[in-house]
Amino acid sequence: MRLNSHPSGRHFLQIPGPTNVPDRILRAMDYPTIDHRGPEFNALARKVLRSLRQVFQTRQPVIVYPASGTGAWEAALVNTLSAGDLVLMWETGHFASLWKRMADRLGLKSEFLGGDWRKPVDPDAIEQRLRADTQHAIKAVCIVHNETSTGVTSDVGAVRRAIDAARHPALLLVDTISSLGSIDYRHDAWGVDVTVAGSQKGLMLPPGLSFNAVSEKAVSSCKASTLPKSFWSWEEMLSTNANGWFPYTPATNLLYGLSEACDMLLEEGLDAVFARHARHAEATRLAVKAWDLEILCGDPAAYSGSLTAIVMPEGHDADAFRKVALENFNLSLGQGLSKVAGKVFRIGHLGDFNDLMLMGTLSGVEMALGLAKVPHKAGGVQAAVTYLRDTAPGARA
Amino acid sequence: MRLNSHPSGRHFLQIPGPTNVPDRILRAMDYPTIDHRGPEFNALARKVLRSLRQVFQTRQPVIVYPASGTGAWEAALVNTLSAGDLVLMWETGHFASLWKRMADRLGLKSEFLGGDWRKPVDPDAIEQRLRADTQHAIKAVCIVHNETSTGVTSDVGAVRRAIDAARHPALLLVDTISSLGSIDYRHDAWGVDVTVAGSQKGLMLPPGLSFNAVSEKAVSSCKASTLPKSFWSWEEMLSTNANGWFPYTPATNLLYGLSEACDMLLEEGLDAVFARHARHAEATRLAVKAWDLEILCGDPAAYSGSLTAIVMPEGHDADAFRKVALENFNLSLGQGLSKVAGKVFRIGHLGDFNDLMLMGTLSGVEMALGLAKVPHKAGGVQAAVTYLRDTAPGARA
Amino acid sequence: MRLNSHPSGRHFLQIPGPTNVPDRILRAMDYPTIDHRGPEFNALARKVLRSLRQVFQTRQPVIVYPASGTGAWEAALVNTLSAGDLVLMWETGHFASLWKRMADRLGLKSEFLGGDWRKPVDPDAIEQRLRADTQHAIKAVCIVHNETSTGVTSDVGAVRRAIDAARHPALLLVDTISSLGSIDYRHDAWGVDVTVAGSQKGLMLPPGLSFNAVSEKAVSSCKASTLPKSFWSWEEMLSTNANGWFPYTPATNLLYGLSEACDMLLEEGLDAVFARHARHAEATRLAVKAWDLEILCGDPAAYSGSLTAIVMPEGHDADAFRKVALENFNLSLGQGLSKVAGKVFRIGHLGDFNDLMLMGTLSGVEMALGLAKVPHKAGGVQAAVTYLRDTAPGARA
Amino acid sequence: MRLNSHPSGRHFLQIPGPTNVPDRILRAMDYPTIDHRGPEFNALARKVLRSLRQVFQTRQPVIVYPASGTGAWEAALVNTLSAGDLVLMWETGHFASLWKRMADRLGLKSEFLGGDWRKPVDPDAIEQRLRADTQHAIKAVCIVHNETSTGVTSDVGAVRRAIDAARHPALLLVDTISSLGSIDYRHDAWGVDVTVAGSQKGLMLPPGLSFNAVSEKAVSSCKASTLPKSFWSWEEMLSTNANGWFPYTPATNLLYGLSEACDMLLEEGLDAVFARHARHAEATRLAVKAWDLEILCGDPAAYSGSLTAIVMPEGHDADAFRKVALENFNLSLGQGLSKVAGKVFRIGHLGDFNDLMLMGTLSGVEMALGLAKVPHKAGGVQAAVTYLRDTAPGARA
Repeated sequence: MRLNSHPSGRHFLQIPGPTNVPDRILRAMDYPTIDHRGPEFNALARKVLRSLRQVFQTRQPVIVYPASGTGAWEAALVNTLSAGDLVLMWETGHFASLWKRMADRLGLKSEFLGGDWRKPVDPDAIEQRLRADTQHAIKAVCIVHNETSTGVTSDVGAVRRAIDAARHPALLLVDTISSLGSIDYRHDAWGVDVTVAGSQKGLMLPPGLSFNAVSEKAVSSCKASTLPKSFWSWEEMLSTNANGWFPYTPATNLLYGLSEACDMLLEEGLDAVFARHARHAEATRLAVKAWDLEILCGDPAAYSGSLTAIVMPEGHDADAFRKVALENFNLSLGQGLSKVAGKVFRIGHLGDFNDLMLMGTLSGVEMALGLAKVPHKAGGVQAAVTYLRDTAPGARA
Repeated sequence: MRLNSHPSGRHFLQIPGPTNVPDRILRAMDYPTIDHRGPEFNALARKVLRSLRQVFQTRQPVIVYPASGTGAWEAALVNTLSAGDLVLMWETGHFASLWKRMADRLGLKSEFLGGDWRKPVDPDAIEQRLRADTQHAIKAVCIVHNETSTGVTSDVGAVRRAIDAARHPALLLVDTISSLGSIDYRHDAWGVDVTVAGSQKGLMLPPGLSFNAVSEKAVSSCKASTLPKSFWSWEEMLSTNANGWFPYTPATNLLYGLSEACDMLLEEGLDAVFARHARHAEATRLAVKAWDLEILCGDPAAYSGSLTAIVMPEGHDADAFRKVALENFNLSLGQGLSKVAGKVFRIGHLGDFNDLMLMGTLSGVEMALGLAKVPHKAGGVQAAVTYLRDTAPGARA
Repeated sequence: MRLNSHPSGRHFLQIPGPTNVPDRILRAMDYPTIDHRGPEFNALARKVLRSLRQVFQTRQPVIVYPASGTGAWEAALVNTLSAGDLVLMWETGHFASLWKRMADRLGLKSEFLGGDWRKPVDPDAIEQRLRADTQHAIKAVCIVHNETSTGVTSDVGAVRRAIDAARHPALLLVDTISSLGSIDYRHDAWGVDVTVAGSQKGLMLPPGLSFNAVSEKAVSSCKASTLPKSFWSWEEMLSTNANGWFPYTPATNLLYGLSEACDMLLEEGLDAVFARHARHAEATRLAVKAWDLEILCGDPAAYSGSLTAIVMPEGHDADAFRKVALENFNLSLGQGLSKVAGKVFRIGHLGDFNDLMLMGTLSGVEMALGLAKVPHKAGGVQAAVTYLRDTAPGARA
Repeated sequence: MRLNSHPSGRHFLQIPGPTNVPDRILRAMDYPTIDHRGPEFNALARKVLRSLRQVFQTRQPVIVYPASGTGAWEAALVNTLSAGDLVLMWETGHFASLWKRMADRLGLKSEFLGGDWRKPVDPDAIEQRLRADTQHAIKAVCIVHNETSTGVTSDVGAVRRAIDAARHPALLLVDTISSLGSIDYRHDAWGVDVTVAGSQKGLMLPPGLSFNAVSEKAVSSCKASTLPKSFWSWEEMLSTNANGWFPYTPATNLLYGLSEACDMLLEEGLDAVFARHARHAEATRLAVKAWDLEILCGDPAAYSGSLTAIVMPEGHDADAFRKVALENFNLSLGQGLSKVAGKVFRIGHLGDFNDLMLMGTLSGVEMALGLAKVPHKAGGVQAAVTYLRDTAPGARA
């Protein structure tokens, strides 16, 4: 099998993650594996664990699992909760639903609010529900910061304020898989108890690592939690991490890449990273509007900085369209998932990305719309060109 | 931080895993990540899942987790067992003990036989214990094929025969983390129900992938098992794998490497791979004997093909010795773990390895013994040179 | 010094060479160097020397120098000519002028025809000049197939016919540095005596290798040639190459890459490669026309498939414009050279390239034109989108 | 063709160059090619040209050719000499002979002194010859610092003193291809006019770059020199290099590697680098003596730090022996060249090398001697082990 036989030129991997892994990270990962019990590894681990806190905007520990993102969801639940505990979750889309299904499978009771995939979490509804829970049966509130299946971003700080307003002791667990390193996210300032993240989106790494940033309260809750746990257990992780070690074999080469990823984000500056993503998202939406297509997200305040989901006109299949884009233009777009399968496609504009990569992407979308005979107006590409030009650094001079 | 600043020349990573990752695998992993829901990935997954069966010597499915080896232990337990189930385990060493501790943490009851770290599993004792279990309270027998902490290899086929002789329905769960791809291992022929393996030893990959090869009986037991499971659940894995997909994001770049690893093992031929390891193990033991040091494994029939653990003479600290080897000769040796900490060191001679790498390794050990003033006779290196010369392909002519 | 610290996303290297080196070639070059006198190297060399003939469309030998392209110009001259020999050259642009200057420095007499940088070689003028040379003082005719400084392609077959029509014995020496592997070129069919080429354009490699494809007549002329030569001498090259060896140390790692490059071109098919380049060139020209800018090449029949040079409107500096493109959009464009310095810029659309990379490039040009306040009409990007869409594989269905 | 299909484990490339390229350099070369006329390249070039002076121990310019080492020989001659000029050369071995042949081919008159391949240059004989040249017909003295075909190192400073003592104006041209970066070499302190070097030995790079370090006197001589030159011409190189540019396309990716190579040598410290090579050379000679084989170099003061050539016992073919080493132990050794073909083999112990790589190498030699039935005593490996142990950093404590 030939893994390296492709059409000419670079592939445009514009799904909402995994994202285009930059050469700097690929090359860092291409170094020989070292002894994970030796001094060189120890220095690496200490450095990475320190840098990660900056990326999560926290002074508290960030746990790194040698496992892909779904695992960090499980870790967040099994370390804080016990069989039969009630968790309040909000259905923003496919991934929120998967997390709920996981909670059910693990023996928790989950209650699902929301359900309009075009809208963000409603903090008022959460506050109301928590106020009604006078017995404090609800042990945790679980939300997805940026719903990867829909491109809808929720206000995490507002949910924190809602919990506080209700004077409810529930933990706040937040999935930031497609927002960390792309959209402003503040573990400490927003009072999050467990932040769940993965390596393959804003962190620009291949899949294979996932994260739990934890609060003191979350760590305490761990002691009372009775869900069985071993691989995901925070306890030994936290105690060994404190000295730069891991309780079992870590994914060394991915840690090489993670070290580079943190350096890259911090060198660019988190604010600059977030502004870059916001600008590309806006350019994308201007193109979508010029095409006269509909953005799935129904609330402009909730538009996602990392991806845009687009509704196909009635009678047109999103997957047929995506196939045209892949086969003609070497462009991978994200598919619609479950409820919106075939009905939306998604453009990922996150990670190691820039203006010309976005223009290649939007050009591919516009051309594929034409080839697939999807009704649309021309001009999306031109609209994005105009916006990017007028907001380029040189335009400010 | 400079990850690439090292002493001159290649590092000798002679711990018993992670092993020296060959350039061919590192370069395969250094390709851009692709869409794990696209046709190119699908072809890769089908190919890898097919090749893996050959490596495990099975016609049954092999599950690949985007998680390091410890996770596959957990997967083996949570998919087959229920809270309070009794498992019979055999204490061959540190890793058998860790697996037992995991079983306890997950809510199982474990019974530990054995305990002499210098001896392999005793199939007769297992048969006897199973015969005594007339109520069939024991749900699984868990053994470690090659105990990485001691260099003692057990006879898995004999354990199977013991279970059969006792006419006991217990499942047979086997850890092959440091034997797969190095020491002959036959999932089907030996009637194993769950084989646990990892990527970073005989498979020559960095850590980050782990495996469960399963029997039909194991898959059936999954239905009755009530331990909570989601990430590790076989069910969705098996159904999606059947079509070349995964239920959640796989570790794509490690799969690139795994594809190469399988090709390399199968191109060389499994028998040739096992013979190569056995020959290097014998050369190592001849050196140890010439040095007049003691091999930890007390049963020549149980000598490991993948590593050799060596007992330090009384009054000498193994870790001080290992530090001398690292600082003077850029050589990483394995440490003694728990019971034998400071008392033994381990030489890994597995993975992508050859005669001259072994001679560099043994030379480093002999020189470090000298520098660390560990009582020993000279001549180990010479003994290995003589043996490797006399057993080289050219010696047969 | 940090070589790997860049703005986010991929750099767009759209100078007319070096071109974007594909990952497949970079990774092939990233293997350990091997013994250039051993059997593995021998197999590689034989394979590469065989594949190269297909790329040059010749059955005659192709010589590979471990030296960049300028060296192959020198090799073509010193192997065929003697001090004081007269060579007829045609001034198509900067690189033709550099080759002439080299001829003069090496002690040849050169006569320069042409001089209009916007036009290709005129075969009739060459025929006329050769007819006038009844004494056959002219020993060689030197032309540049695709003038990299201007984007003007000449008709090599027609020059061959002109020489034949004049019944003149002069050798035909052709520079294909920016055409080989991008624009149809036929060493044998067009009766070329020496073809000069380099690695860093259509062959998609980094710079460091160059080539002389030779005719039997050229090889014969070598015997009479008296210009001093040693490194560039064909004689030992041809005799050692015949057995898969080189007379002095070859650039082994670049040969790894060359082997991949030939495979990639031949897998895609030369005709498909040429059609791909022609289509991208046409899309680029449609954009330039929509911008209402002027293409330097004044003869549509001579438009280049590998690059397009664009004339800046009076009063606007091309280099200031290029700086805006680089600093705002991470896009490298080619500068104007000597006569046209500051007056033109060049877009390279050759090598490992595809539709979306071109659209990123053209978007960058259009945006930079805006930022640099260069008078132009909007719509170039849109024109290219329309053309690429309508000529995509899927449009034929 | 599969370039990556090899026997298991690392190849031992112990020819006296190309040497084992370290991962750090291979990975640096594996970055995308950049615009050689852009600001990023300019910073790289300035840095590399500055670092190189330290490696050559000079304050004068070092010219970098995008061409392999043989080219730098030619450059040294054509920039300083004119047709018919007399050069005095010393036959230390095969490479000195090749340089002489090149001088002859280029139209110089060469006079060859010496001829005993087991001895270094005799400065007294040179002084005597120069004193006899009262007309100063001799324009240059050419010597090889470390003769790669024999492992004999000459005293360059003494040759300088001999020229000065003879009050002769001849230029001093020195080949340091297999000594630079391995054996102490001082361009300025030893008054060398042109130093010739290549990338693939002590600089640890793949082949493809070569160097001329020049003195002011050499640069002046360039003006009078009439040998034709263009590609090799110093003039434009020096003027463009002064601003961080090159007159024609440089080998960008090899320059990435060169930047790393200089950093590595200077981080380790040149004195430490030379001491490391000297220690490995001594260990090798102790092994050879223990084997009771003969070192080709007949003068212990002239033993080479970078390679050791070993004389085969009468009646035994060195190439048959080398084949045994390659086929049985994945070890490449250097062949005997011309006069000593089949009679000697060479062990390269230079470049990115360390104690255990040397022990692997010497073990391979000892085993292959046995398999090939070459008469020898056992114990070479043990002798080297003892010496390396007793001279390790930890032995000094």
